[in-house]
Amino acid sequence: MVGIKDVAKKAGVSVTTVSRVMNNRGYIGEETRKKVEEAIKELDYSPNQIARALLSNQSHLIGLIVPEINHPFFSELMHWIEYYAGEKNYKIIICNSVNDKEKEASYLTMLKEHRADGVIMCSHTLDTEVYKNLSMPIVSFDRIISAEIPYVASDNYHGGELAAHHLIEQGCKKLLHISGPLNYEMLSNRRADAFQITCTRHQVEWDILEGAHIYATFEDNWRFIEEELKDRLTDYDGIFCSNDLIAYTLSTYANKNGINVPDQLKIIGYDYHSFTRLLQSPKLTTIKQPIELLAKQLVRSLLKQIEQKGQVEQTIYDVELIQGETT
Amino acid sequence: MVGIKDVAKKAGVSVTTVSRVMNNRGYIGEETRKKVEEAIKELDYSPNQIARALLSNQSHLIGLIVPEINHPFFSELMHWIEYYAGEKNYKIIICNSVNDKEKEASYLTMLKEHRADGVIMCSHTLDTEVYKNLSMPIVSFDRIISAEIPYVASDNYHGGELAAHHLIEQGCKKLLHISGPLNYEMLSNRRADAFQITCTRHQVEWDILEGAHIYATFEDNWRFIEEELKDRLTDYDGIFCSNDLIAYTLSTYANKNGINVPDQLKIIGYDYHSFTRLLQSPKLTTIKQPIELLAKQLVRSLLKQIEQKGQVEQTIYDVELIQGETT
Repeated sequence: MVGIKDVAKKAGVSVTTVSRVMNNRGYIGEETRKKVEEAIKELDYSPNQIARALLSNQSHLIGLIVPEINHPFFSELMHWIEYYAGEKNYKIIICNSVNDKEKEASYLTMLKEHRADGVIMCSHTLDTEVYKNLSMPIVSFDRIISAEIPYVASDNYHGGELAAHHLIEQGCKKLLHISGPLNYEMLSNRRADAFQITCTRHQVEWDILEGAHIYATFEDNWRFIEEELKDRLTDYDGIFCSNDLIAYTLSTYANKNGINVPDQLKIIGYDYHSFTRLLQSPKLTTIKQPIELLAKQLVRSLLKQIEQKGQVEQTIYDVELIQGETT
Repeated sequence: MVGIKDVAKKAGVSVTTVSRVMNNRGYIGEETRKKVEEAIKELDYSPNQIARALLSNQSHLIGLIVPEINHPFFSELMHWIEYYAGEKNYKIIICNSVNDKEKEASYLTMLKEHRADGVIMCSHTLDTEVYKNLSMPIVSFDRIISAEIPYVASDNYHGGELAAHHLIEQGCKKLLHISGPLNYEMLSNRRADAFQITCTRHQVEWDILEGAHIYATFEDNWRFIEEELKDRLTDYDGIFCSNDLIAYTLSTYANKNGINVPDQLKIIGYDYHSFTRLLQSPKLTTIKQPIELLAKQLVRSLLKQIEQKGQVEQTIYDVELIQGETT
């Protein structure tokens, strides 16, 4: 294998000079730089990143732990995380936790073993203590872990408020919110809080049905509706769903069971990811999360820690109501 | 940082013994193994994978280059690749080429620098020579690179034949195929070959319109239809689309422009990925690729090379017609 010494020899310079050229450090004359670059090219020298990482303690690898790769929200988030990390020459190792505690823990161990420079956590099944003791830069999506760990989220409270308010404005009298799992301290739980408070403030009756965020198939969402909601679906005239896949499934379910959407039942979703944007019939009314911005800030915030620049920051982006045909 | 020496000291054994336990090599008594495992646990010892990789020349990292992370076909393929690689303790570095030659080449260089153990290539913009000279285990999805490089694909020829045959059986007299980009030597081009031959054999008129595989948004597909197909759409009574997103967009476009699907125009897609399975209205008639099987075999075939077990194998899986409402 070609080594740095061979490059130095070929270029007629010292190993230090080659290293300087490669790392863009210190003053190097134009001619010397050219000679080194030509030698690298001619010898097809590929610097050993593993050895480099061992010396510099930087691998330029970032772990990304998501609860479900194949869920359109996370595919899109991942697309943008890969894009913005790539711009800064970092690569992404993907880890699909399927919301399984053991998998999530073993991924964290694996990322430590591989000396990943940091982790973007979008899956949150473990106790906050685990993340606090990670001794590795980390940024959290949608969960407050501790004051020292930055998080990025969209304004879930405002999202819940917008959704409930929209249904009330449309004349709904009895509302239901199908939430995500409420047992983890996720910021997305603020949607449910805002829903309750907005309904109460407007003296509108409400219920909450705890759902699951990560059902990525029509069948799983359909089964959830059959098992948990079927018998009391007609009790409600407005339903705020915590994600667009359940909202879509629910609107299909209602129409197939003789309940007209939006006349008899108004449905509003959450996310506005690629699936929702593709969908033309019905176009969902939903709350749009700024997925590209969230991804960009997750990367930015992690790199700030890795490169030890500046303070820990918490970032919250606003959301937006998208008017469709289901309300 | 805790090292292997500390573990050995704590367990009262030699460094070699600790290494043996960790690598599951040689005979180790049950009691000794237990002592070492307890010491590892108590000291929270995390073996340095980077140093290990340098010594063993194995990183347990696999590169996965796809043309578009956010396209539902590739999200689903990636989901299963991560799953099956994870079972064998390999991790995935994702690389999104966006079908850009320069990006694809720079990813290959990067993966070499990181000493990835191998690459799964699902993006194919470069000349076959580049892959042949990669000096790194590689498996190709949907493209024959050389006899030495294994590929995995579904039976694209049979898919094209099934699709054309189905439209002809339904009484169509003038058919169009919207293909993927035909300039690269992709196996998916066999769909177009089979389409032509099947039409010719049945003496049915046909055209081919070269499309693009990776438009992941409704708007991009809509624009493509407006620019390339609008004026002659009524010339055809059956269209075979090379992916489900263009098929869905086309069926929406036709219905909005007063062309009834399937009465006046029959449409058949390709892929049957998560988007298509979610979609209830209209349910697409399409050709199903066995995405999980493809992913499983891509991983299996790459690991065979990495672990130098057995011959290079080429694998082709059969496809299946899914009857929906668009034909």
